Amino acid sequence: MGRVWNFSAGPAALPQAVLEQAQRELLDWNGSGASVMEQSHRGKRFIAMAEQAEADLRELAAIPDDYAVLFLQGGATQHFAQIPMNLAGEGDVADYVVTGHWGEKAASEAAPYVKVNVAASGKAAQYRALPPRETWQLDPRAAYVHYTPNETIHGVEFHEVPDTGEVPLVADMSSDILSAPIDVKRFGLVYAGAQKNIGPSGLVVMIVRRDLLARHGRPMAKILRYAEHAAAGSMLNTPNTWGWYLAGLTFRWLKAQGGLAAMAERNRAKAELLYAAIDGSGGYYRNPVDPAARSRMNVPFTLHDGALDAAFLAESEAAGLLALKGHKALGGMRASLYNAVPLEAVRALVDFMRDFAKRHG
Amino acid sequence: MGRVWNFSAGPAALPQAVLEQAQRELLDWNGSGASVMEQSHRGKRFIAMAEQAEADLRELAAIPDDYAVLFLQGGATQHFAQIPMNLAGEGDVADYVVTGHWGEKAASEAAPYVKVNVAASGKAAQYRALPPRETWQLDPRAAYVHYTPNETIHGVEFHEVPDTGEVPLVADMSSDILSAPIDVKRFGLVYAGAQKNIGPSGLVVMIVRRDLLARHGRPMAKILRYAEHAAAGSMLNTPNTWGWYLAGLTFRWLKAQGGLAAMAERNRAKAELLYAAIDGSGGYYRNPVDPAARSRMNVPFTLHDGALDAAFLAESEAAGLLALKGHKALGGMRASLYNAVPLEAVRALVDFMRDFAKRHG
Repeated sequence: MGRVWNFSAGPAALPQAVLEQAQRELLDWNGSGASVMEQSHRGKRFIAMAEQAEADLRELAAIPDDYAVLFLQGGATQHFAQIPMNLAGEGDVADYVVTGHWGEKAASEAAPYVKVNVAASGKAAQYRALPPRETWQLDPRAAYVHYTPNETIHGVEFHEVPDTGEVPLVADMSSDILSAPIDVKRFGLVYAGAQKNIGPSGLVVMIVRRDLLARHGRPMAKILRYAEHAAAGSMLNTPNTWGWYLAGLTFRWLKAQGGLAAMAERNRAKAELLYAAIDGSGGYYRNPVDPAARSRMNVPFTLHDGALDAAFLAESEAAGLLALKGHKALGGMRASLYNAVPLEAVRALVDFMRDFAKRHG
Repeated sequence: MGRVWNFSAGPAALPQAVLEQAQRELLDWNGSGASVMEQSHRGKRFIAMAEQAEADLRELAAIPDDYAVLFLQGGATQHFAQIPMNLAGEGDVADYVVTGHWGEKAASEAAPYVKVNVAASGKAAQYRALPPRETWQLDPRAAYVHYTPNETIHGVEFHEVPDTGEVPLVADMSSDILSAPIDVKRFGLVYAGAQKNIGPSGLVVMIVRRDLLARHGRPMAKILRYAEHAAAGSMLNTPNTWGWYLAGLTFRWLKAQGGLAAMAERNRAKAELLYAAIDGSGGYYRNPVDPAARSRMNVPFTLHDGALDAAFLAESEAAGLLALKGHKALGGMRASLYNAVPLEAVRALVDFMRDFAKRHG
């Protein structure tokens, strides 16, 4: 069939132009007579591509020189564990601000390696709102403060970066990285699974202040130590070469789109269009999140009558609108509006939603 | 340019037919209207593919039901650390049989997590021969015995599985998995980075006896625990979906080639052809490895005069023979002859070698 509009929460839509280029050069990349997947990661051709990808990301996100950029594996979940191993000594405290499913997971995976202090939680509010900054119980001795700027399942998002003073701020940006300009200096460490706004799954992009890499952590294998990956240019062992390559194509595509400020503008317009359709449906569709904390990336919504869910899903898929089923934790629907989802896709979705409401009134 | 013969040690050549199928369906996989990379790993389409890949691997390698098959990330190197975390308690001893670079690395990455006993080492013989089984100093209390059946850099290979009695045998098969039939029951755990004989980098395939998953190990994050990955069908978090897909295509390709017995036959013929050319060159080319321990997968060789190396590399590349440069630890040349390298490629290589020797006599 033809290409559909893909609202998957991740692995998610990739830019059409990126896929087309990857397809064209799949068997013969860069005049090498072999696929990019068949190249040694230590060969000149691959290294030139890898360095260009990093340079493009640095330019896009205005990453200062005192930050390392790492291309890693394991998904964000592995780094829930690896971050405390690297940034905290045994017995240290780390603050966790928990505003949804992924923040919960980050805290629980960290617990074997650091004393987790849940400094704030949105749980009592069913993760539909963010705990106000002034209520956070931060520990001044904390090794770092961890938070999740955007919660993929609950659809809540911080619209500004919290101030944590001298304590380094660590952000799991898996679902909102590169969706808007980022003030890297506000963070000690930013990390993201690639499969939402960057590329395919199996790749993690990390931006980390170099002085934090000098922290001792604890006895551990070299392969788990970020400082070793940084010293080896993310080639301590064989990286995910295909993921790195596709991330590089995406970075170039983002530059061609006008960069992160332009993406932010588009992402705002897309989200506004969908929330307006939900809010303007007279209660036919509902989004449960505090409007001040609504995510631009992931929009969960329910139908006024759950008995219509199956029809909504079947008809939307038939209309070429893919992956609108909500996460099982919340039920209902969810539309993810990452960078690679164009405004046109959201227009098609809201048109479908209005039509569905009319027909199933 | 046209496709070349690719002798890369890894990431290595993939079967042409696999790449062609991946290219055809890159933008529209399985009638979904989206790339396989854009599919939720929890969606029906992806899960059916993933289960088929596992079933095909089980059939190919005759994997018994009391073994789990896992699709993981991190490269073999990460599992050098994760295996002792999972299979040994703190303070336990593990035996390491070190027959080259990768065995050394496996032992050193394990050291923070287990008492490493180097039970045997080929180091004194410069890793050109295997230490005879009767010289191994195995510890009967060891949690496991680790070895590297094929050493990618040094080009030495075990041609039979060593007997370790009741102590589970753990094998890093990164560079020889699926190159011949495997008697899985002889092993406690087999693991392999995919980028040599299975698929792209960023994927690790593990075959592990289920009772070993019940070992307690130590306090650690769920994401590092193999038992959790097994319980979740390797979807504890988002797996490398592209890698899993390509591995699945490769497994089907291997079945179509006649399975592992047929591959073993071809791999034997390929290696014999190349070793015969080296040994029959009157000393123009040399392979330093004890003939009884020569690898069928990775053939390091030197020219009689190192001053000719640059010309050999430039001319071989111009002749469409890619990635023959040896590892920096050994210098000279190396030809890797994994499953996806056809006999025709080896014929082209030995023809080139003879011609080169004539011209540069």
